[in-house]
Amino acid sequence: MTVSVDEIGNLFARREGTQRDAAPVLIGSHLDTQPEGGRFDGVYGVLAALELVRALNDADIATGKPIEIVSWTNEEGARFTPAMLGSAVFTGVTSLEEALAKQDAQGITLADALAQSGYRGTRAVRFQAVDSYFEAHIEQGPVLEANGTTIGVVTGGQAIRWLDVTVTGVAAHAGTTPMPYRKDAYFAAAQMALELEKIAERRAPRALVTIGQASIANASRNTIAGKVAFTVDLRHHDDNEVDAMERDLRAAFASAAKTRGVEVSIETYWRSPATPFAPSCVALVAQAVDALGYSNERIVSGAGHDAIHLARYCPTAMVFIPCVDGLSHNEAEDALPEDVTRGANVLLNAVLARAGVAATLNAK
Amino acid sequence: MTVSVDEIGNLFARREGTQRDAAPVLIGSHLDTQPEGGRFDGVYGVLAALELVRALNDADIATGKPIEIVSWTNEEGARFTPAMLGSAVFTGVTSLEEALAKQDAQGITLADALAQSGYRGTRAVRFQAVDSYFEAHIEQGPVLEANGTTIGVVTGGQAIRWLDVTVTGVAAHAGTTPMPYRKDAYFAAAQMALELEKIAERRAPRALVTIGQASIANASRNTIAGKVAFTVDLRHHDDNEVDAMERDLRAAFASAAKTRGVEVSIETYWRSPATPFAPSCVALVAQAVDALGYSNERIVSGAGHDAIHLARYCPTAMVFIPCVDGLSHNEAEDALPEDVTRGANVLLNAVLARAGVAATLNAK
Repeated sequence: MTVSVDEIGNLFARREGTQRDAAPVLIGSHLDTQPEGGRFDGVYGVLAALELVRALNDADIATGKPIEIVSWTNEEGARFTPAMLGSAVFTGVTSLEEALAKQDAQGITLADALAQSGYRGTRAVRFQAVDSYFEAHIEQGPVLEANGTTIGVVTGGQAIRWLDVTVTGVAAHAGTTPMPYRKDAYFAAAQMALELEKIAERRAPRALVTIGQASIANASRNTIAGKVAFTVDLRHHDDNEVDAMERDLRAAFASAAKTRGVEVSIETYWRSPATPFAPSCVALVAQAVDALGYSNERIVSGAGHDAIHLARYCPTAMVFIPCVDGLSHNEAEDALPEDVTRGANVLLNAVLARAGVAATLNAK
Repeated sequence: MTVSVDEIGNLFARREGTQRDAAPVLIGSHLDTQPEGGRFDGVYGVLAALELVRALNDADIATGKPIEIVSWTNEEGARFTPAMLGSAVFTGVTSLEEALAKQDAQGITLADALAQSGYRGTRAVRFQAVDSYFEAHIEQGPVLEANGTTIGVVTGGQAIRWLDVTVTGVAAHAGTTPMPYRKDAYFAAAQMALELEKIAERRAPRALVTIGQASIANASRNTIAGKVAFTVDLRHHDDNEVDAMERDLRAAFASAAKTRGVEVSIETYWRSPATPFAPSCVALVAQAVDALGYSNERIVSGAGHDAIHLARYCPTAMVFIPCVDGLSHNEAEDALPEDVTRGANVLLNAVLARAGVAATLNAK
């Protein structure tokens, strides 16, 4: 294979096909991880791609289109934010200059970190012809395991919206302020949280709502909270439903604020629309699973993946396998060996169908 | 006056009475403040005591019992915790050794800070005979102002209980975990907060509940909260009611935790029983207000004061005056000049009644 590194550190290994001018089928994932992450998130997709090529070599199979294994830079966003930066630059979502200037917590730029590690490559990062992209990954959730399903045929990524909410009441003495005089930002925020939960319940099971960060300004045990800031993560398969969830949230939070005499401000921090994968590629994954006889179900990816960026650039599909207890971003992250193997088999069959089998190199 | 400083830095100024062996009437408050506190919290009580002595001097009045002005060390607890440390040592609630070993945020002990400032005195801090204690203070709440009352005749301090609550769910991916699979510690904590509010509503208007500190462990915008810790401040005039509030809280939190599949632990961090002031001293304040013709009401102190420690040691009373907008622990803290004067007049009359007017020193 021919190995190259592009300007943002994405690592490629190319196996030529018989159609010399054809755009390659990309297969891969990422090798970076979370500070206390496990051995499968990302790594599985890269190793599955490597195993796929080894299997082709072992079987002396030549593909029509070239195959390129890719390991994307900084998918997790653990050192440099945002996440999925290498694929963002590759697909033009983020400019190379902006990405290289990102700094880690110590103020080191991505450009310097790449240079220091020897992964500041020279291959041009943009405007590359790509036939398609396939990525195998652990589900990072409990659904496949709970349903006893071996393979998740991923149909796309769900819509995500991140909001920043600030509730402003009046900080006051916990001992001297009668309840009716209070403008307690914490109790107001608690009411908003439960209203948010109801918004998800009304759109079950597709709507997901999370408050992952919350803090009281100048918090003190015996001071009524004057200001509470919290984040909201809204997700749904359908963009219109996320819009409706945000509308309901704004109405419910405004109403709660009015009742309690506090103020609420809601800002949209980030929005990522729902990203359907190309039906042609999804069908190849589904056909591979059917041919292999594995149990399977259609699933929408709850997490972000490089495939979400790629899906806006070229036909894309993903293969999910179950992970034990749905656990991810955790050193205990695990997947059963038979599931790991089956996922790689599905990837192989789908990619072969897309790339085309040209000939066996040497008859055995 | 004879000025002395005791071993914990409490500052005394003694004006002898005609009864040489009589225990003194103590009057005072504290001069320390919050980092962004105002000009009245504490300072008012010390200056009112000083003005009281000046008025006696101006009018050539000798009291029967001696009068001692006191400024207590570290009432606010802003530099050394806990608060009210000088009066705690004076009354034997805390040992001198323990108090002197307390460290500030820079690791400087109270002993060293006192030595450095020249206020590590030699007067023995314990086992002093005290006739009674009177303290004037701003209300630090909105009640007197809202009711248009000039003087609060303080009948005691309310019961305070501080709890530490930890809710443990399971941290998981905000995008990949369906709502029914979640054990979201934040939403559970929000439900507990609203249950707590209902507990206070059922005991209105005396019950006060505050959640002043709350934090999500390893908080991340797109991670379901696995652990939330928060504080609870419960207050009521009546110890039995605080006991009942805590019982209700434990039942409600356990029920919410069970419903949501999370665990909750509740630890009692501190409990301070209700502290009624001596009726004899409260009556002297009430009589002084009536004689002066000021509007007044009985009030229970919501905040902690040195007087709470003193009340367990000797007959004690407090005089409250309104503060503008009920604001305290804030640089904007204010009180109207006429209220400041009236509070000092009440203090003077009550203390004179307790100390006894022996004679005018020199006829005018």
